[in-house]
Amino acid sequence: MAKNEKMVEAITSMDEDFAKWYTDIVKKAELIEYTSVKGCMVIRPYGYAIWENMQRILDGMFKETGHENVCMPMFIPESLLNKEKDHVEGFAPEVAWVTYGGNEKLEERLCVRPTSETLFCEHYANIVHSYRDLPKLYNQWVSVVRWEKTTRPFLRSREFLWQEGHTIHATAEEAIEETERMLNVYAKFCEESLAMPVVKGRKTESDKFAGAVATYAIEALMHDGKALQAGTSHYFGDGFAKAFDIQYTDKDNTVKYPHQTSWGVTTRLIGAIIMTHGDDNGLVLPPAVAPVQVVVIPIAQHKEGVIEKAQELCDRLKKAGFRVKLDASENTAGWKFSEYEMKGVPLRVEIGPKDIESNQCVTVTRHDRKKTFVSLDNLEEAVKQELKNVHDGLYAKALENREKRTYSCASIDEIKSALEQNGDGFVKAMWCGDEECEDKVKELTGVGSRCIPFEQENISDKCVCCGKPAKHMVIWGKAY
Amino acid sequence: MAKNEKMVEAITSMDEDFAKWYTDIVKKAELIEYTSVKGCMVIRPYGYAIWENMQRILDGMFKETGHENVCMPMFIPESLLNKEKDHVEGFAPEVAWVTYGGNEKLEERLCVRPTSETLFCEHYANIVHSYRDLPKLYNQWVSVVRWEKTTRPFLRSREFLWQEGHTIHATAEEAIEETERMLNVYAKFCEESLAMPVVKGRKTESDKFAGAVATYAIEALMHDGKALQAGTSHYFGDGFAKAFDIQYTDKDNTVKYPHQTSWGVTTRLIGAIIMTHGDDNGLVLPPAVAPVQVVVIPIAQHKEGVIEKAQELCDRLKKAGFRVKLDASENTAGWKFSEYEMKGVPLRVEIGPKDIESNQCVTVTRHDRKKTFVSLDNLEEAVKQELKNVHDGLYAKALENREKRTYSCASIDEIKSALEQNGDGFVKAMWCGDEECEDKVKELTGVGSRCIPFEQENISDKCVCCGKPAKHMVIWGKAY
Repeated sequence: MAKNEKMVEAITSMDEDFAKWYTDIVKKAELIEYTSVKGCMVIRPYGYAIWENMQRILDGMFKETGHENVCMPMFIPESLLNKEKDHVEGFAPEVAWVTYGGNEKLEERLCVRPTSETLFCEHYANIVHSYRDLPKLYNQWVSVVRWEKTTRPFLRSREFLWQEGHTIHATAEEAIEETERMLNVYAKFCEESLAMPVVKGRKTESDKFAGAVATYAIEALMHDGKALQAGTSHYFGDGFAKAFDIQYTDKDNTVKYPHQTSWGVTTRLIGAIIMTHGDDNGLVLPPAVAPVQVVVIPIAQHKEGVIEKAQELCDRLKKAGFRVKLDASENTAGWKFSEYEMKGVPLRVEIGPKDIESNQCVTVTRHDRKKTFVSLDNLEEAVKQELKNVHDGLYAKALENREKRTYSCASIDEIKSALEQNGDGFVKAMWCGDEECEDKVKELTGVGSRCIPFEQENISDKCVCCGKPAKHMVIWGKAY
Repeated sequence: MAKNEKMVEAITSMDEDFAKWYTDIVKKAELIEYTSVKGCMVIRPYGYAIWENMQRILDGMFKETGHENVCMPMFIPESLLNKEKDHVEGFAPEVAWVTYGGNEKLEERLCVRPTSETLFCEHYANIVHSYRDLPKLYNQWVSVVRWEKTTRPFLRSREFLWQEGHTIHATAEEAIEETERMLNVYAKFCEESLAMPVVKGRKTESDKFAGAVATYAIEALMHDGKALQAGTSHYFGDGFAKAFDIQYTDKDNTVKYPHQTSWGVTTRLIGAIIMTHGDDNGLVLPPAVAPVQVVVIPIAQHKEGVIEKAQELCDRLKKAGFRVKLDASENTAGWKFSEYEMKGVPLRVEIGPKDIESNQCVTVTRHDRKKTFVSLDNLEEAVKQELKNVHDGLYAKALENREKRTYSCASIDEIKSALEQNGDGFVKAMWCGDEECEDKVKELTGVGSRCIPFEQENISDKCVCCGKPAKHMVIWGKAY
């Protein structure tokens, strides 16, 4: 290393302190900055660009499945929030209340939306009258506010960005189908765009969304063995329709209540990427959502023709549709290597005088630092292949971590010893369906129910807690 | 017309009642729906799709000029809002205040952002230290809240969507250049994407943004002769930097205050489109932002092969990159004509059995109902040309209206009689620069200063009000 080389500041090692490692990354990769409002953050350009890429891909998937975007107000009058009993009980304790407009006290206070079911219901009551008006397949991209006590960047913040889909259908069957369809869209997105394997399943009764008949979720396992709920999809039945008096006249001229769903993913997914793929050198980004997919770094750039050649490679890759950045700044190559590793750029392309002579460059994949010599004749194809390698490598690594940390247990003791010996992870264990047992497992072992996976296995015939006949295999874990 | 033909409900004529015509359109073209929160609206899919198209084009223009998107919190602590004196005076009377989080009263109340200068300043104070950190060229797409007394959809609502650019520069020159650059971007967007001619100019002192050194604006003239401020760009000097203690160390090792700008356009532009291009048959959309650019309507669709052929045309046009919709519903062709005229679809393509025989279709442009027979061999090229004709036709019509309604006046009496004889419009008249005269012109004639256009003319040498030597030609008008 050159004598006066500027160093990229090191981050805490993930094995030493995972929580500190996480916050080091969000700050040093310049994803966020704190503000003077507790629990609210600035999402900086590099962090926001990740979200924009997620939005673009998801929005395309929503539109392909027939959804349209709308925009509801950010305020909900208290009386409107109060209309559905379970819903208000779930959300009222954690909403922010607007009580003054300018200098005047409001006649009725307004909450800042924690979620928008009530607003969509009010709207649907206005526009849905006949079976011809159904279904409505709406989505919105907005921010919502929940007055959390404990906050962490991306994972749990008082304001966060999300999309919320809200649909309304003539029949229960259609609505249930929609709920499942969108859960599958989320799972596909996580696996194909975020390189993050997920388990699809149903939440237990105690863990349902406030006001839902059934909540489905995708659950991912983070590097430290903790679970993260990565997306949810809710089936509401006709409960909201009844509470908000939404009715339609069917083909047979009878008046009926329609059935509703809602579904959402949030900026929390950025936290999931960090904790699924990151390492001690910083962030590692899946190519599909990386703001910069390829960084081109000239080696010995003071030598004649090097920067020009690097620029040429950069232009060729841009033209081929990659998101590319050339760093021809005066920092050392070593500093640049560390900097773009910290920022998680999936692929580095190095080009120096010797490479130019040999009509080649060097590619280095972020996640495994694998070096490859690539003929310049073949640059675009090689970069495409290497980015695919990064995606596949990330997915395989994440899946391997999850499999290593998934424990099938037939008793409370087995759960305890599996967690003690191998650390946190997913526990597969049978359950009788009784809420008391669910609570007791958590109390005794520290892991709570994450979901009842669609793909069931028969670990044993008996509930892991009470020994009575089991109804479901549940995945248990400690949750973010 | 067939006996039992369903009719598209007529709207109020614009000459009869322009305000009612406007609200009829926003409702019947399904752009918005009212909500139970006064002054807040639902932007429906068709309205939101217009905004998405605007966003896509503008966001591309911002990125081409080097800007990056970020996301700031929606809340501003009262003490932060209070830091810049003029700014807080301008905004405090019209902000919504959050005073409770859940059941707990907040120690300090938070306002919902009416604009985000203060948040950007707090952030810049954290991240700007050296000349190397400058400039920062940031933008965000969010909604803001201003507690207006009188509201109208898109034109003045308590919550509205916008983008707000916030930049910070080493020198005043760079910041002023940025302010002008973004005003030019807005003008280009209005003219090339919205087919709306605008006047670029500077606001008078009394009409500046709260906290700005100078405010630039683009002003458009609506069909009824009223002016609409379509976008603004502010130069702040170093006033905010001083108030928020943002400093940087320059190359020469001295500590300096940076210079800032901000600039924004809002969903108000949708209102501008309606009032610039709309007619008694409904909305008329400029092709660049129309959610549906071409509607294909089969004629005598019960005849064999008609719907199939219409579908084929639709597929061809989609493939060629147009936003196309086929309406093969059971409504009559007459109903469909009216419906898509109401929704302002720029081009209609009709195809019936006789057309199929002759290997042709009929195109009808929305703004002038001009019919053209088009060979199917030449469909894509013809549609491209017709959409260009719509854009050019809309622009020419809007410009003609503005020219017809622009009056050069050398005295108060001339202003009065021009407005009386020809109706509302832009008045060009000279001004001495004195705020008293500005107020008096408004009091005596009803028109206020809109801007001091960059393109000056010499209507006379004297102030239209006091007769003293004139400093500027001002454009005066009644404003939305």
